[in-house]
Amino acid sequence: MAGAMASTGPERALDKIRAYDRELKLLRHGTALLQWDQETYMPSAAAEERAEQLGLFETLAHDRVAADELGGLLAQAGAGPDSPSGAESLPDLDRALVRHLYREHSLARRIPRELVGRLARAASAGQVAWKAAREKGDFAAFKPNLEGLVALALERADCLGYSEHRYDALLDQYEPYTKTAQVRRVFEELERELVPLAAEIAEAPQVDSAFLYGEYPEFRQAEFGTRVLEEIGWPADRGRLDCSAHPFTIGLGRDDVRITARYDRNFFNTAFFSILHEAGHGLYELGFGEEIRGSTLADGTSLGVHESQSRFWENLVGRSRGFWRHYFPQLRALFPETLEGVDHESFYRGVNQVKPSLIRVEADEVTYCLHIIMRFRLELAMVENSLKVSDLPDAWRAESRRLLGIAPEHDADGVLQDVHWSMGGFGYFPTYALGNLYAAQFTEAFEREQGALEGYLERGEFEPVLGWLRERVHRHGAAKTADELVNSVTGAPLTADAFMRYLRTKFRDIYLTA
Amino acid sequence: MAGAMASTGPERALDKIRAYDRELKLLRHGTALLQWDQETYMPSAAAEERAEQLGLFETLAHDRVAADELGGLLAQAGAGPDSPSGAESLPDLDRALVRHLYREHSLARRIPRELVGRLARAASAGQVAWKAAREKGDFAAFKPNLEGLVALALERADCLGYSEHRYDALLDQYEPYTKTAQVRRVFEELERELVPLAAEIAEAPQVDSAFLYGEYPEFRQAEFGTRVLEEIGWPADRGRLDCSAHPFTIGLGRDDVRITARYDRNFFNTAFFSILHEAGHGLYELGFGEEIRGSTLADGTSLGVHESQSRFWENLVGRSRGFWRHYFPQLRALFPETLEGVDHESFYRGVNQVKPSLIRVEADEVTYCLHIIMRFRLELAMVENSLKVSDLPDAWRAESRRLLGIAPEHDADGVLQDVHWSMGGFGYFPTYALGNLYAAQFTEAFEREQGALEGYLERGEFEPVLGWLRERVHRHGAAKTADELVNSVTGAPLTADAFMRYLRTKFRDIYLTA
Repeated sequence: MAGAMASTGPERALDKIRAYDRELKLLRHGTALLQWDQETYMPSAAAEERAEQLGLFETLAHDRVAADELGGLLAQAGAGPDSPSGAESLPDLDRALVRHLYREHSLARRIPRELVGRLARAASAGQVAWKAAREKGDFAAFKPNLEGLVALALERADCLGYSEHRYDALLDQYEPYTKTAQVRRVFEELERELVPLAAEIAEAPQVDSAFLYGEYPEFRQAEFGTRVLEEIGWPADRGRLDCSAHPFTIGLGRDDVRITARYDRNFFNTAFFSILHEAGHGLYELGFGEEIRGSTLADGTSLGVHESQSRFWENLVGRSRGFWRHYFPQLRALFPETLEGVDHESFYRGVNQVKPSLIRVEADEVTYCLHIIMRFRLELAMVENSLKVSDLPDAWRAESRRLLGIAPEHDADGVLQDVHWSMGGFGYFPTYALGNLYAAQFTEAFEREQGALEGYLERGEFEPVLGWLRERVHRHGAAKTADELVNSVTGAPLTADAFMRYLRTKFRDIYLTA
Repeated sequence: MAGAMASTGPERALDKIRAYDRELKLLRHGTALLQWDQETYMPSAAAEERAEQLGLFETLAHDRVAADELGGLLAQAGAGPDSPSGAESLPDLDRALVRHLYREHSLARRIPRELVGRLARAASAGQVAWKAAREKGDFAAFKPNLEGLVALALERADCLGYSEHRYDALLDQYEPYTKTAQVRRVFEELERELVPLAAEIAEAPQVDSAFLYGEYPEFRQAEFGTRVLEEIGWPADRGRLDCSAHPFTIGLGRDDVRITARYDRNFFNTAFFSILHEAGHGLYELGFGEEIRGSTLADGTSLGVHESQSRFWENLVGRSRGFWRHYFPQLRALFPETLEGVDHESFYRGVNQVKPSLIRVEADEVTYCLHIIMRFRLELAMVENSLKVSDLPDAWRAESRRLLGIAPEHDADGVLQDVHWSMGGFGYFPTYALGNLYAAQFTEAFEREQGALEGYLERGEFEPVLGWLRERVHRHGAAKTADELVNSVTGAPLTADAFMRYLRTKFRDIYLTA
């Protein structure tokens, strides 16, 4: 009797927490619409005020997360430093919600409001300065901003707290519960494997990709992209595909997830692979289970897991032989002149060309992670105070030469190429590489259970593939941590093994067996 | 000294009021984006949750308007029942802001929160029921909803309060400070004049408008519409034109006003005149003065004045002889086959065809106000309890026959044609007719000061016209009441005189001088 009485407290709190959580989610979706519109349809003169609108909405959401009211409700549900998931009597899903909100609440409380303001202003000014500096290839013009942003990131890390490494606090913002030591271990393994593989490929006869740079009228690219989108399972009544300068995915509601693309008339890859990439992100968000839809648990559990879904559709599906066996005839029918004399095998090889490049977003599957490892090492060195911002361009060139064998002549193609640091996004880059690893490890699990992926793709059978991902990965959203998820789906924690097996098999076949 | 000391209180409060007001405006613009998106690009499956999102944002804005905090600030600024504009020591613009917010605050406080909820639910259910009933032409299916909505409107009116007539409280929501007695007087005058004018025209030889129903490919209509938009002064960097099922205008920011159109391939008027109409609304919102931009004073001062701007561009400009002297050659070049054998004069006459119709939104300039007068009389009778909802369809037919000489066979073309009542929008209709009156009275003032409008239009000189409207009408926004505005612009209160002079001159010329 006493036990039953005791359990009514947390359970009653849960009703209120769910209502509170629901409003928070609605507020965030409203903010997301302001962001989507900003990148797609907003008239140019509205930019300045849009920043103010976004500022207000983000503040409203931040205040709601940090509010005493939420803290009180979470305490009533039994949440505390030693019980972040709340009372053990609660059902699993409620405990997941409590854990998720308790984490957000605790983190938000640790950052003083004035620091939130300083971070926002520095990020805003940083992006402006970075954009101008990149255009002129002038690192010196961006240096003071970057120094300020590094100092603020450290201040933020110290507010958030950490037990092992200062970088943990930064990484945790994007890849919750993942530690620097884990990333370092995995990246060392990756580096050991990738550098020789890339070298081996460089020695082999090269593949032709010239036809990818032919004439691809935008409207036909859009026709093909939309057809593939629909066939892999994108629901037209629950999402949209629009254009924007930089492709992105954004969730605006339970049944409203939008992706964007940018078309290049003279390079097939630009739009098509980014449509598949964003579709992967979008299908994750559209696949959150009925039981978490509309709550803050309906979110990617980490950026790495989110990226695994985009990389899966972009690379493991979209750059597979089976996929092009199925789709190449249709593609060729749309671009008969451009693709004259090209067959599905040479097309497949062409979209898988390996070639070290200076620019991360243009990198192939083999060298991509080396770009990330480089950024991770540089970030880490800055956080550890062993690298000064003023020495960053030289360090960039040295790392690039060591890992990729090439180095940028101009900083615009080097240290100034990415937006992330200008927004204070230190700790973000590793999630891109982790995404590749998660994708490969999930795929091995799929194949153990469902048979070879290649066969499904060749037959254009996407439904069983998407269905499996929905059931095993998507539906959980943030109700499982990335670690819980990868263990439950694959039976093991994340390593680089599956990814390296995938790369070796695929690229030795393309480059080394001719 | 004492006087100077006393004035610091209200002035200090004003700083806080302005900041409070600014957030309120930002919040409303966020809500407006949710509405715009709902009608333009939102995926269909997102409709249900969008209603929830809108509900939350509207509640946040309502709570902010009704908040004790705002009440306290307004009191500090000297606002009260006998001093709605605050302390007399305040500058005029501050007094306008205090008056505006004090009015909103007082009205919001008078409606109990539970009534807000009941009104919203009844309006939402009412629209669903109305839509189904209209499709089947089944008034009985809508009757219970309408009875509930009338009862709620009366309850609302009683909460809001009134001194002369219960309908005043309803009208005041859309046409602030305007009284039922004024509207009744003006409408009686209008009716006395319009009915014989329409009869006179009906007796005259009719004009041809068959060419308006020819082939007008949508993309060419869009090309022409966009060209005219730009030339009359629509700033492409501060607004957009999109498509939606029902054309509308919405302000999303100081520099972000959007309009929509619907294209009919086989009827020229559908898109073109509604683009001009919505552009008129939009140019008003884009013309708010620097000193009020971004505040809640940056709003139409009344729906009647807002409508005056849309009617001005749609009718006084877009249906003028001068306008088509200027534009007809260009239009004909775009649709050479459809407009073969048509000249600017016959086109001008065609778009001004007068013919009593059952449907308000298809009405010509002469009979339009009769549709409004009819609705006003019926609303008034329901509010006065002299007309039961069950007798409404018969009363509609009787009024229609009396005023227009025709009556609908089916309720879908009669009492069920408009959405307004299904949303509880009693008191809204009169503003449409007032818009026509304001437009004509403003135009006479323009011509007294600047010379004949016709001349400007014929030469395609829109800038002096828009410039005059900006300076005299637009820039004030809600800082002047409709009555203050019409007096300051035209030197007299609103009457039907200018509108009747305009109609008689224009339509006698078209119909009675051949």
